[in-house]
Order: sequence, then structure tokens, then C-alpha cells
Amino acid sequence: MGAPGVSARTVEVAAHVGEQVVIHGWLQAQRRLGGVTFLIVRDGWGTAQAMAETEAELAPLVEAKAGVESVVTIMGTATAAPQAPGGVELRELRITVITSIHEAPPVALNKREVKAGVTTLLDTAVVTNRHPTRRALLRLAGGAMGGFRATLTAQGFTEIQTPKLVASATEGGANVFPVDYFGRQVYLAQSPQFYKQIMVGVFERVFEVGPVFRAEPHSDTRHINEYVSLDAEMGFIANHFTVMATLRDVVAGIFGALGEGYAPELALLGATLPDVPAEIPHIHFAEAQELILRLHSVDSRGEPDLAPQEERWLGEWARTEHGSDLLFVTGYPTSKRPFYTYPDPMRPEYTNSFDLLFRGTEMVTGGQRLHRYADYLAALERTGLPSEPFAWYLDAFRYGMPPHGGFAIGLERLVMQLIGVANIKLATLFPRDLTRLEP
Amino acid sequence: MGAPGVSARTVEVAAHVGEQVVIHGWLQAQRRLGGVTFLIVRDGWGTAQAMAETEAELAPLVEAKAGVESVVTIMGTATAAPQAPGGVELRELRITVITSIHEAPPVALNKREVKAGVTTLLDTAVVTNRHPTRRALLRLAGGAMGGFRATLTAQGFTEIQTPKLVASATEGGANVFPVDYFGRQVYLAQSPQFYKQIMVGVFERVFEVGPVFRAEPHSDTRHINEYVSLDAEMGFIANHFTVMATLRDVVAGIFGALGEGYAPELALLGATLPDVPAEIPHIHFAEAQELILRLHSVDSRGEPDLAPQEERWLGEWARTEHGSDLLFVTGYPTSKRPFYTYPDPMRPEYTNSFDLLFRGTEMVTGGQRLHRYADYLAALERTGLPSEPFAWYLDAFRYGMPPHGGFAIGLERLVMQLIGVANIKLATLFPRDLTRLEP
Repeated sequence: MGAPGVSARTVEVAAHVGEQVVIHGWLQAQRRLGGVTFLIVRDGWGTAQAMAETEAELAPLVEAKAGVESVVTIMGTATAAPQAPGGVELRELRITVITSIHEAPPVALNKREVKAGVTTLLDTAVVTNRHPTRRALLRLAGGAMGGFRATLTAQGFTEIQTPKLVASATEGGANVFPVDYFGRQVYLAQSPQFYKQIMVGVFERVFEVGPVFRAEPHSDTRHINEYVSLDAEMGFIANHFTVMATLRDVVAGIFGALGEGYAPELALLGATLPDVPAEIPHIHFAEAQELILRLHSVDSRGEPDLAPQEERWLGEWARTEHGSDLLFVTGYPTSKRPFYTYPDPMRPEYTNSFDLLFRGTEMVTGGQRLHRYADYLAALERTGLPSEPFAWYLDAFRYGMPPHGGFAIGLERLVMQLIGVANIKLATLFPRDLTRLEP
Repeated sequence: MGAPGVSARTVEVAAHVGEQVVIHGWLQAQRRLGGVTFLIVRDGWGTAQAMAETEAELAPLVEAKAGVESVVTIMGTATAAPQAPGGVELRELRITVITSIHEAPPVALNKREVKAGVTTLLDTAVVTNRHPTRRALLRLAGGAMGGFRATLTAQGFTEIQTPKLVASATEGGANVFPVDYFGRQVYLAQSPQFYKQIMVGVFERVFEVGPVFRAEPHSDTRHINEYVSLDAEMGFIANHFTVMATLRDVVAGIFGALGEGYAPELALLGATLPDVPAEIPHIHFAEAQELILRLHSVDSRGEPDLAPQEERWLGEWARTEHGSDLLFVTGYPTSKRPFYTYPDPMRPEYTNSFDLLFRGTEMVTGGQRLHRYADYLAALERTGLPSEPFAWYLDAFRYGMPPHGGFAIGLERLVMQLIGVANIKLATLFPRDLTRLEP
């Protein structure tokens, strides 16, 4: 391959001015300007510019008829060039075509913005996820997972992976996908709830990052049918406020990790990280309904849940009143929370539960759980559920569990709200909705 | 609660000799000996001993009729006691019963070993996973995931989470679980193979930790139907040996993380970490068959795969010949590898693929993949597969992919081989097999 060069990522070229450098990647753009040709090469981390001054330098591209998205290696001298992105470009090029592409991608990848509607973007995600803005957004999801794990690991949590094939629905209701398991009907787990509780009996503090499946026939911009849940569960709590304090640290850890490791991605997307206050403000569900009545003349008292518009109003209020993008709503009504939820000892029609709203959308659900065996039997009877299918789960409580609680962060919701994406389907690699199973 | 004490984990008590300490956990054992009563309390990290010298100290346990696995808080003075585990015990106790348990667990948790057969252990896993030896083993899985991610993150890999609900089988064959998806038949992903390859086009280097589902009607000690796959995929490789070099670093990173962070667990289980040589020895599939013929007089030449016994023989040979617990077998026959496998350019009946054997059992599978669109079309036609269901996947190659490859580590296989567990079902929290979906 001729003279040796320093192998470098595109984002490292600037550190090698004056040296012979080899980069590889996708030919994102090629344009002729005043007798020279500029090439933009994209690798997994960023882009670099190369400038060809002669036809001979470009000959390998011409011979291979290599168009955009062709895969290439370019050797050249890293040269300071104030007009080039990053202030440096490669010159005196030796180009090798690795994979020659002759067909233009379905959506142009070399414009500043991806110019396509949601359906086209989703249909062509295999290719459009390569666009720098799509890629930056998707990379943030990786960073968020890292921040979640690092924070909890430092606090003594153990990572677990629990089964996704289950014999009975975990959250009750009919919103489960049936699976044909060697001729037997089983289900996809709606959450790791039962297992993470059981594992509190083993490790005291556990977390899991994994897929959850919800057969809810939504057709909106806030739901997908398979999503990534960042779950945690911890023992020996006083009540749900202990869990909320840990969640506060986790949220601070996630945004801290993004701020440290993902500044270029955030800048490209024009996203601003929220400040996470030492104590995130909280409001009780009943007070929240009173507040909405007072501020917006909408009387939803007696409703067991908050409507999306009400969550947005509360988000605005938290911003105005507390200067916070984050708001805990606590004490959701018993009627709306699953049977394992711990009731508020003072007001048993409410629960020791919470949602965390981020910029006016629910991003986390959590709370304290029942921990006494007798309480489970009573709760199942009260809600009309048979106890037999849950016998294995109830064994954890039969043989001793401490007061405990936890939470589940919706990864796509977090990314959606952070970046301000209008549709959650654009906040993940390859979403699943009512009709979409490809790509 | 009276006099304040330092809140500590059981494993931290020894650092507080002379101080008033509060621990919490499960009452693992209680035994009277020469006029005093010893209590063993287990929390999420280990155990601590407490000694009661008076009936008054024990009164809360007696009043609550609290048996083993009751959840308690114990305050006491940390006192040096050479005979106690860890050389320290709590004395002058103030006990609070949090959850009182009157029924003994189905399998005793306070013996040195769990005394039960495999079926009982699996049936009662909700409780028996609390046993210190079970727990130590299960915690190692968490450490292995951490080591996997840390190594790859340091090498520029991005973490992804790909869909588990897919429209068509990824690995071919009938071994997929059908899912009823809003009335449409779809499948559970057998691997993230297609998606991780696609994402090489986006991030160049990616990894994923997640569940995979195999509807293989095995009934043996080496297979489960849902397992955790540690997947990686990388672009711009020379051939499968580039991937093997990265895998070597990953394996060293996993065992390094276990050695650093999990020494007590390894000691409890009597497990020895393998040395990971700078270069793991490798042998070509065809040579491996010749070797087996020579050493064991078994002629399997012409067979497209290795039998479990043959893998064990190769493991012994690697140990004897190279002093290594790890051995790469390369160049598996084309007929046995999936359509996306890159053929050996010199001998197209073999492939640029590998398995990594760990102590004589396959723990990792990997290789180089095809990267040219035309090669995919030809491979699908050759194997008699229609290309239409794969159109979305093929788009990645249609619009430019570099030479790439990757691997998938079976987490449970790794734990099984490391600890020397005879049955893989005991190397995971809650296994799924032909008939088992609970707990």
C-alpha cells in the first residue's frame, strides 16, 4: 500500500498536522469547487475533509465509479486549512476504494438535516441512521445506559438479566404478546417487575437494562410496543422517598455522563441538558389536580390518572415555580396502580408511588411495593386476581422480604424529551408499532 | 430507635471495631452454644455474626416468633472475636424484627452447600438463589457483563439495543418462537445478527447485551432456550483474525474485571480464572479433525461440525500443548455456517469463522461476514433462501458496507465453564427449557 501513514479516526486528524495520515470510512460527499475536489469521509465517530488537486488522485474513485456511501481508505498529509471543518484537511491523496456504491441512498445523507417525513425515515432507517444527526441521537441512548449503570454500580447495585418468556402476565391486563412455546401459550414479559423484586431478596439492590413488550394498540407519538427499560429495585427503604432519592442520583448520573462524554452529539442536536436539583421538586397527585383546576380551570379531581396535557401543564409549572425540568408526582390512586403497590398508610386510596415527569412527559414510574406475604394474598383477592399463577413469585415474600421499591426509566422517552423529538419512534434504532416490524 | 449507630453493610463491620454499628438483613442462622446465642445475618453483600448473651437481647425475635429468613435490623458494638467469621461480631444487641417469617425455606440456606438436586434447585430458585454460593455465581454474571462493556467502550464501540420482535428468522431454520403480534405472526429474534451488522454502517463498532431466543428442542445440560448474548460487531477488519484479536482483549477484560472485583465470590466457589495469553492459540477446523483422528482414533473428517466430546478433547489438547484454557477453532465448513458468513478466499468450502472453546466447550461464535451486496444475493440464491424477506437488511450492503465481523459470547456458557457447573441451567437466575417457564 505504499508509504506508511498514521492510522487515525476522522476526529483525530487535527492532532496529526504535518503527518501522513490514513483514514477510512464512507464517502459522504464529493464536490468540485474552483478546480479542486473536496471529499468528505465519515467514519464511526465524525467526518474529515480531503482535497484532491489532480485528476490522478481521484482516478481510483472514477475507475470504480464510486458514488456517495462508497467505502474508502484515504491516505494524505494532514494540512491546516482554516476553511475546512475542524481546521484541517488531507492533501496529496492516495485513495483506495474498498466497496464501490453506484446507487444513491434513498434519503440524502450529506445535507445538514435529514429531509424526509417520519414514515420515510422509519422505512429507510437502515441507511438514514447513518446521518450525523440521527447517529448523534442514537449514540446518546448508549451514553444514557452507561450513566445509569455506573451510578447504580457505585451504589452497590448488582446487574441482572431476567427472563423475557413468562408463563403469566406480570402487570395484569390483556396487554401481553402471546408466544407459541413448543405448543404451549406463554407471554413476553411486560416488565422485569416480579423478577427484580425477587432479586432484592438475593442481592438487596439490583438493576437491569433490557427490552419490555407491551401489546397496547396505541397509535400515537408517545408509545412503542417494544422499548428499553432501565429498571432498578432496592431493599430496606423507608418509603418511596428513599427510592426517589436514588432515582435523583441516577438521573444526575445519566445527564452527567452525557455532559462528559457526548458534548459533540448534544451540540450537533442543539440539546441542553437539564440541571438536576439536589432535591427534585415533588407534588402529590391530589394537589396536582387541585393545581390544574386553579391554573387551567380543568377539573380532573376523581380521575385516577393524569392526561398528557395535564402532565405538560405540570411540567410548565415545575419550570416556572421551581426552575426545574424534572418533577415528581407522588401518591397515584390505588385504583390505577398494580396490585403490588404499597398503599399510603395515611390515605389508603393513594399509594406510595411516583412518576417522574421530564419536561412535561412521564419518563419514570416507580414506588414502594408490598413486602409482606399476607398483604399480597389480600391484594390479589381484593383485585380479583387468582393467586395460583403467582405462587412462585409469592414465595419471595413467604420467605422474607424487606420494605423495598424501585423504578423503571423508559430509555426512548428520556432521549425523546432530551432532544425534543416530536415522535418517540425517532428516538430509537428500529421502532416497533402496531404495523411496523421492519426494518 | 435509641442510641445512634453507624449504618454498615455486613462486610464493612470489621472496619468499625469498638463502634456502635447497625446492620440489616436476613436472619440466616441462629444457634445456641454454651449459654450464648449466635446469629448470622446475611445482607446483599455477605454475612455478619452477632452474639446475644442475654434473653432480653433475643426477646424481639422470640416475641415475633421470627425464624430463619426473617428480616431484621441489629444494632450492636462491633467487637473483635477471633473465632467469628471475619474476626468480628456484634455484641450488646438491639434487635428489631422487620418481617417475621415462621416457615422454613424449602431448601436450607444456612448450610455450607445447597443440598438439593437440580430440579429442586430450579423449582425453588426464588429462594435458593439467596444461598451464598448460588448468589456468588449469579453475581459473576453481572461482573462479566461489566467487563465486556468496559473493554469494548474503551475501544470505541457504541452500545446499542436492537428489536427482539422480528418479521423473519435471522439465522434461517425453523428454530424460532412465533409471536402473535396484533393478529400477525412474527418471531422472537434468534440473535441481533442482522441489526448489529447494519449498525456497523452507522457506528463502525457496536455491542449489545441482551436476550436471544432459540426454539431448539434440546433436553441436555448445555442448552437453554433463552440466554444472554454478549454481541459485538466491527468494521474495517482484515479478516476474522482481526475479530479474534478484539475478542481476546474482551475475554481478558472480562476475566480481569472478575479478578479485580469478585475475588470473594471466586474464592467461595473455588474457581480459578484462566490466564488469557497475549495470543490465544488457534487451530483450523480441518487440522482439528486430523488431530482428533491422530490422538483419539476417531475419524470425523467430512463432518461439518465438532461433537461435544471432540470439543472436550481439543480443550485438553490446548491445555497440554499450549497451557491454555482457551482455544480458537477457525475455518468451520461453509455448509454449517449461516449464509452471511465470509468464505475463506483460498478454500471456499471453509469460512473465515471461528469458535472460541473455553475449557473444552464452545463459549463464543464469530467470524467475518459478507459485505458486498452482490455476494449476499448470490449467497441467498445458493442456499435457496428468498431475498425478499431480507430486503431491508440487504439495504445496508446496497448502500455501502466495509469488511466486518463480530462475535457472540454466551454469558451462561462462560459462567458454567468458569465455575465448573455441570448444568447450564444452574448458571443463570431463572432458566427456560423445554418445559420450564417458572419461576
